[in-house]
Amino acid sequence: MLTHIIMPIIKNKIILAVTKLFKIEQLEIEFNNNQNRKYEIISGTGCDAVMILPIMDDKIFFIKEYAAAIDSYTLTLPKGRIDEGELLLEAANRELQEEIGFKSHDLTHVYTLDLAPGYINHKTHVILAKGLVPSKLEGDEPEELEVVDYKLSEINHLLDHNKNLDSRVIACLYIYENLKKK
Amino acid sequence: MLTHIIMPIIKNKIILAVTKLFKIEQLEIEFNNNQNRKYEIISGTGCDAVMILPIMDDKIFFIKEYAAAIDSYTLTLPKGRIDEGELLLEAANRELQEEIGFKSHDLTHVYTLDLAPGYINHKTHVILAKGLVPSKLEGDEPEELEVVDYKLSEINHLLDHNKNLDSRVIACLYIYENLKKK
Repeated sequence: MLTHIIMPIIKNKIILAVTKLFKIEQLEIEFNNNQNRKYEIISGTGCDAVMILPIMDDKIFFIKEYAAAIDSYTLTLPKGRIDEGELLLEAANRELQEEIGFKSHDLTHVYTLDLAPGYINHKTHVILAKGLVPSKLEGDEPEELEVVDYKLSEINHLLDHNKNLDSRVIACLYIYENLKKK
Repeated sequence: MLTHIIMPIIKNKIILAVTKLFKIEQLEIEFNNNQNRKYEIISGTGCDAVMILPIMDDKIFFIKEYAAAIDSYTLTLPKGRIDEGELLLEAANRELQEEIGFKSHDLTHVYTLDLAPGYINHKTHVILAKGLVPSKLEGDEPEELEVVDYKLSEINHLLDHNKNLDSRVIACLYIYENLKKK
């Protein structure tokens, strides 16, 4: 097994573009074997995100939301950016109330996902939410979100019925299945 | 169940930044209820990507690769951009040979993943690769990649031993588990 004790060195870093939400940088990296490569990387200008797995009885709650980058409605899990100064589980409980009209008194941070870490620096914290009770908060959503529940016993049909899902949503399902096996 | 028959309208689109690899645009979207929102979205300037699940006997092959955006080595699956004019399965077989030193005569396109479709327009095609035989191609990797195999019977420990995995890698494992159940 090779060990990467000597990390590559970031020899140079240039900001190529900054917008309200994103920053694109070019990195010049020198590897241990003296090979040099240039990479473009994207980072958000704000905080990390949460994605929540809301479980009640034998069901998972999803939402159907307009995804601007693909100009299409897509099935996803409740999620959103963490506000400045907000704790992880606070953000999860806020998003739950804004997006599916429930709050939870049993939230657990179960994993943190990366998103194409070769070129995007963005973390999504996966929060398992049980103990759900109805509670609605007004969010900044442009329209009411459709809440879609899936029976856990039928979740294996999700991929057949939904093309091009957000990889984080599918990752959350694997994380949950894995937790149940413990 | 609400139905979104009337799609939101993209009223305006401004290019905010273009680099060698990425484009950032601002979209002004009008929803069915006359609410307007501005979104920033990222798209790649090239083709889609493939991510390959190489299975041999009772093992999955992963690679350990430097991920520039998080400045860290990370466990991932063989993957890469599809070259101009290249077919999906050709790209998968090229990446396999470049990254793990095998080629496959049994490749299947099993799913297409999105990646945070609210703000990134990028597709990753998941290719299941069986029937592996040794074959090496020189790629553009800056250094030799470490190949790591995991027994399928031990794959449920992967998340315990690897923090912050690429969500697409975990999604691939779910897709594979799901296929096996059929």
